[in-house]
Amino acid sequence: MRPLDSAAIIAVGSELLTPTRLDTNSLAITAALNALGIALRTKTVVGDIREDLSAAVREALARVDLVVLCGGLGPTDDDLTREAVADVLGRPLEEDAAIVDRLRARFASRRLEMPEINRRQAMVPRGAHIVANPNGTAPGLYIEEGDKIIVLLPGPPRELQPMIQGIARDRLEPRAGATRMFAGVVRTTGLSESHAEQLAHPVYKRWRAAHLPIEVTTLAAPASIDFHVTVRAGDRESGERALVASLEELRAVFGDHAYASDARGMEHVVGDLLRERGYTIAAAESCTGGLLTSRLTDVPGSSAYVERSVVVYSNAAKTALLGVPAALIEEYGAVSEPVASAMAGGIRERAGTTIGIGITGIAGPDGGTAEKPVGTVAIAVDGPWGCRVRTRVFPGGREQVKFFATQAALDDVRRALGPDRG
Amino acid sequence: MRPLDSAAIIAVGSELLTPTRLDTNSLAITAALNALGIALRTKTVVGDIREDLSAAVREALARVDLVVLCGGLGPTDDDLTREAVADVLGRPLEEDAAIVDRLRARFASRRLEMPEINRRQAMVPRGAHIVANPNGTAPGLYIEEGDKIIVLLPGPPRELQPMIQGIARDRLEPRAGATRMFAGVVRTTGLSESHAEQLAHPVYKRWRAAHLPIEVTTLAAPASIDFHVTVRAGDRESGERALVASLEELRAVFGDHAYASDARGMEHVVGDLLRERGYTIAAAESCTGGLLTSRLTDVPGSSAYVERSVVVYSNAAKTALLGVPAALIEEYGAVSEPVASAMAGGIRERAGTTIGIGITGIAGPDGGTAEKPVGTVAIAVDGPWGCRVRTRVFPGGREQVKFFATQAALDDVRRALGPDRG
Repeated sequence: MRPLDSAAIIAVGSELLTPTRLDTNSLAITAALNALGIALRTKTVVGDIREDLSAAVREALARVDLVVLCGGLGPTDDDLTREAVADVLGRPLEEDAAIVDRLRARFASRRLEMPEINRRQAMVPRGAHIVANPNGTAPGLYIEEGDKIIVLLPGPPRELQPMIQGIARDRLEPRAGATRMFAGVVRTTGLSESHAEQLAHPVYKRWRAAHLPIEVTTLAAPASIDFHVTVRAGDRESGERALVASLEELRAVFGDHAYASDARGMEHVVGDLLRERGYTIAAAESCTGGLLTSRLTDVPGSSAYVERSVVVYSNAAKTALLGVPAALIEEYGAVSEPVASAMAGGIRERAGTTIGIGITGIAGPDGGTAEKPVGTVAIAVDGPWGCRVRTRVFPGGREQVKFFATQAALDDVRRALGPDRG
Repeated sequence: MRPLDSAAIIAVGSELLTPTRLDTNSLAITAALNALGIALRTKTVVGDIREDLSAAVREALARVDLVVLCGGLGPTDDDLTREAVADVLGRPLEEDAAIVDRLRARFASRRLEMPEINRRQAMVPRGAHIVANPNGTAPGLYIEEGDKIIVLLPGPPRELQPMIQGIARDRLEPRAGATRMFAGVVRTTGLSESHAEQLAHPVYKRWRAAHLPIEVTTLAAPASIDFHVTVRAGDRESGERALVASLEELRAVFGDHAYASDARGMEHVVGDLLRERGYTIAAAESCTGGLLTSRLTDVPGSSAYVERSVVVYSNAAKTALLGVPAALIEEYGAVSEPVASAMAGGIRERAGTTIGIGITGIAGPDGGTAEKPVGTVAIAVDGPWGCRVRTRVFPGGREQVKFFATQAALDDVRRALGPDRG
């Protein structure tokens, strides 16, 4: 049989067509298919309207080898995925006794009787393979139609995600072609997207010239330009080797701007460095309002290195909690490098930590001046190596300025702790 | 001519078919169309493949009155939306001299010469109306084909969003039916989704029995169950009146659990209450790691009421910065109501604020016990009315427990400041 090459995803549910909701299930499905070298050609969102759903299935089946539907497998009259697929394939829907038994047992285990309505979930198009759902009532369905395959998945992510993994491994893998895809990421910060692209360009050119099967997608995340790398190969060993080599090659061109060759966030990278060195940290935050410390403490086990922090919004608090002289604030202004340095030194001394951070700036929308516009942030990192301070101007609104400032502060700590330092 | 009733959105770009990116442009387009009473029937994401794109346009035109495409209007060979639409309509692409002039002027204003490649952006299907793009190089296109309409929008959100607003107002409004849609939201917290639905059920029943044209979509946001209400009406005045009435009716059944009848987040609701009363606030955070204060300071102008906060991860910091007696921690444990109360009282006294908050808990994944499992959080609010403290157990992982705890703390402040109190 011809190997599976192309796929389409159809997400079902009228709520996914409102101005407040997105289909996110397709991301996990795409990742599972791409790993098998199966390319996603289209994704479609359809409401709970039988004719729209049937039209989408028919249209996709005409174009691709594999159609994955998610959602619309619930017990109510709105759940029409089973019916629409049966329509298109011209197969009758038949009740599966084993599914009814499993549903009854599932309800019984919670001392409930199965509502009659749930019998709908046991209706399957003739010839479909049942895929068990340990996390919910709706089983998945796997249907072969000539050379083509149709997969039906339940909508809730915690039911769908393990199921697509299992189906990819057990049923799609043997039908996929010889090529597999291996995915990784290089994360950078402190570069604009166009500057980062410019640095990466010679590498792309080299890969193209050598006909290497490597693809890169750039994703501009908040305060992070990420390069998602995909490598095609015929077996796991050479694929993983090629992936590691291409990530390293790409990372090299970004130098110190690359902070991770994996999916870790900056707070995890810094946390790992602190833990490795047995260092502790404390922060004095003004414009970031606690966001820096919140990010540091998003990391499990961060209580090993986060001792304390203070948010000093008022000048009085800067003096009372950090010993920043009122005269210094008077002379240079609250947003200034001398004040940031005094904050970093003050918190380090009072907390007795290896590292102290001081952040002071103007998050906006008000408070900017010609000399210090909105987005101006002074960041100081005080440590055994002395105190380093730098002023930057970040773009965007209040929340964006806050996030950029925390990213820059974490990055300053990372650079201070880099391989040759700290 | 028959009024516009149904629409489809097609988002164009291979990057939108990767496991890391979602089409989000469709949300703004959906909101603009829904406001005109135009229902979205499907949305589709298509890669930069001419045949897939043509197939999607052809299929959508056969089903709906209005097809909105976004993306694929750039200057490169990958940008195929113009070509695909011209194909389907059987119209030639012709260079529009006015667009070329505008592009040249745009580049000239930045002292650049227009690259020859950008001429592609001046190619339009014969008969298309040009829609100016003040924020970028690609103009939008508006095409009538018999009773049907096709709109082409550039992909960057800051170019697309004002353009769809303008097209909706100037061109689609006159073609829409008499019915308009008016949208609002009631936000609740402290209720499970099923409990909230149960409370809302009698209201839905009443609306259905009275044949009122009101629709509700429930959205479970983090620590907030939101009821998005849409009302259909023939004119603005009766539509807005009906919307306000239905929001009030829905809000009433949730009682104190409803915290907003608009899109404001909890931190904005609390900020508005503090500002109205001229109150100030300070927080002592342990397990939330600064996230509470970060949320409070996400609100522009929050420096009027946020004085300071401390993040006291270590017991030593709790004693040094808040005066929590070591013996109290010893006797009850760091995660306990007496310690939360002492933290709230300690920060209130030291900061000299109207309100003090103390939060201590176990965010996980480690540190839980049989008596105090992961997710256990004690929250105290100290104010002129005395100190109120309460222990809750939140579900989920570390970041979710942190967020739930900040939402509950803000909600406790909101309730303390409610209309009859504070």
